[in-house]
Amino acid sequence: MYFRPNIDAMAGYVPGEQPGTDRVVKLNTNENPYPCSPDVVEAIERAARAGLGRYPNPMGQPFRERAAEVLGVEPDWILCGNGSDDILTIVTRALVGEGDLLRLPYPSYILYKTLAELQNARAEEVPFESDWSLSEAFATGGDRLRLVFLPNPNSPSGTFVPPARILELAERLPCPLLVDEAYVDFAETNCMELVARCERIMVSRTLSKSYSLAGLRFGYLVAQPHLIEQFVKVKDSYNCDSLAVAGAAAALGDGAWLAENRAKILATRARLTDRVRKLGFKVVDSQANFVWATKEGTPLRPVFERLKQQRIYVRYMNYAGWGEGLRISVGTDEQIDAFLAEIERIVG
Amino acid sequence: MYFRPNIDAMAGYVPGEQPGTDRVVKLNTNENPYPCSPDVVEAIERAARAGLGRYPNPMGQPFRERAAEVLGVEPDWILCGNGSDDILTIVTRALVGEGDLLRLPYPSYILYKTLAELQNARAEEVPFESDWSLSEAFATGGDRLRLVFLPNPNSPSGTFVPPARILELAERLPCPLLVDEAYVDFAETNCMELVARCERIMVSRTLSKSYSLAGLRFGYLVAQPHLIEQFVKVKDSYNCDSLAVAGAAAALGDGAWLAENRAKILATRARLTDRVRKLGFKVVDSQANFVWATKEGTPLRPVFERLKQQRIYVRYMNYAGWGEGLRISVGTDEQIDAFLAEIERIVG
Repeated sequence: MYFRPNIDAMAGYVPGEQPGTDRVVKLNTNENPYPCSPDVVEAIERAARAGLGRYPNPMGQPFRERAAEVLGVEPDWILCGNGSDDILTIVTRALVGEGDLLRLPYPSYILYKTLAELQNARAEEVPFESDWSLSEAFATGGDRLRLVFLPNPNSPSGTFVPPARILELAERLPCPLLVDEAYVDFAETNCMELVARCERIMVSRTLSKSYSLAGLRFGYLVAQPHLIEQFVKVKDSYNCDSLAVAGAAAALGDGAWLAENRAKILATRARLTDRVRKLGFKVVDSQANFVWATKEGTPLRPVFERLKQQRIYVRYMNYAGWGEGLRISVGTDEQIDAFLAEIERIVG
Repeated sequence: MYFRPNIDAMAGYVPGEQPGTDRVVKLNTNENPYPCSPDVVEAIERAARAGLGRYPNPMGQPFRERAAEVLGVEPDWILCGNGSDDILTIVTRALVGEGDLLRLPYPSYILYKTLAELQNARAEEVPFESDWSLSEAFATGGDRLRLVFLPNPNSPSGTFVPPARILELAERLPCPLLVDEAYVDFAETNCMELVARCERIMVSRTLSKSYSLAGLRFGYLVAQPHLIEQFVKVKDSYNCDSLAVAGAAAALGDGAWLAENRAKILATRARLTDRVRKLGFKVVDSQANFVWATKEGTPLRPVFERLKQQRIYVRYMNYAGWGEGLRISVGTDEQIDAFLAEIERIVG
């Protein structure tokens, strides 16, 4: 009764299931199955022992400086966030008011719609083409269009829109385009260099996936400094804690760990893709740490349920007008073998 | 050009100065000068070593369960936040839409006004009486009044409105009243038991001050469960990281540390109050970990500046229509001695 009508009416975003026990094969929320760089653990321990009584640097400056070196931008092009969820929230609140329009592709990350609902704004879903490319409709200037989200690589498909195409679309748009690069470290290229070429292009990243740090909550935005300045007004004063800033800076500093982890995930992804295709699934080439498997003529919810009974968690998704599929995170080879053995029993 | 007009027009909240060096006496942001409980450091190290690859529990359940025991409520009465800033943001976004009204007392925590501006809502400041009590105006139902904030103990005054008076006011209000108990562990009593008695009363707490964990970013809200359910829709899915949840749960588990820390701060506060009064300052009795000192006929900005030249940071505040003062955090005895020696030189 006390709440805003848009909040009252919302169902709320439901994050992927987090089963309470460790004795499961968890391939449902695109976490990285390997432990993070030991440098990260060491940096966190050092920060904890140094004392937590003081407020952290409000801008997460130690991370900004490290990330600037790695990314080849200046620190004032970087905004730190408490997970990239925090970044998406900040950007939405800064740009999108009640009744405004926020655009996203379909099917993609459901949270973007939730962010629009929280602002009492409208969300417009522009369908991907059947080959997961984007049509001109994605660049149309709409009435009160204020922000466009594009996850790239996309979820659930794992597909990638080439940077040249994104630049083309952004140049036609009347508003900023946030390229959500949560999975980009598993892709062949990225949009980072577009940020300097077009002020409307912003890139967000997370350390949850490729750095194996979902539990740390750290993400960041790269955008031109005059945009960053406005977003700073919207963020909570101390949105990133001292431990996360120290850990995240250490993570970006260990490039060798990232390269090795990426190589392992990509090898397992290739094997997973191949084996699932051999079972008659359609699997589009993925540039992320998951694959999207569909199967015409076979209802997939029962497959998902039977996997779950065997303590193998994947994500079942059913997109109206598009169809259903299983999104399978790339786990360890052992986890993927367990998954493959079970799904072969079910559909083989 | 791309931004919402209310964001464009905002100056943005400016948090207290964080000088870059350790060689200062820092009494300006009400941090706790003592190291946190060793249990906290140990819990953080354990959590870091256990791995951060998985998403944290979305509700911070380990903290909720521990806090529920300590506070004598059920876990579903508790919402975890990334600092109490996050709690204040969530509550404001859930209740206050564009053009709605948010009420706060004056002078108090400036951030509440910023939260209204971010929502493109209006803020109404109701002045405290000259003895820092609240008049009936604080309980008037206003057009589109959606949320009332009351910091208790208040900042900058450190004064406390008795729970019975708060209940009286809340019963007359048409909307929720959030009692911000950031400093309440330094007070004689608190409003926790009112939450069950009146659904409009909500209590927020932070671990930044009394638990010496400003760097960890952890706060929480206690409210009736049907309200908590709505706030959950608004928060980021994983707003509290695994390290903060583990550390915060450990902090609440070490009641002996809290009692000892509180006793030290209260003893130093009494000595600080007494000595500053002897210098001719007016100091209202504080129930927080800071004191508010005013001095008729003596301009205080120059005093603040001279202290700063000596690397002693306090907070200078000047409230239009109310006057100026120095807010001095209760540091260690050594820090307070350094402050007293210097201010005696300046005004003595």
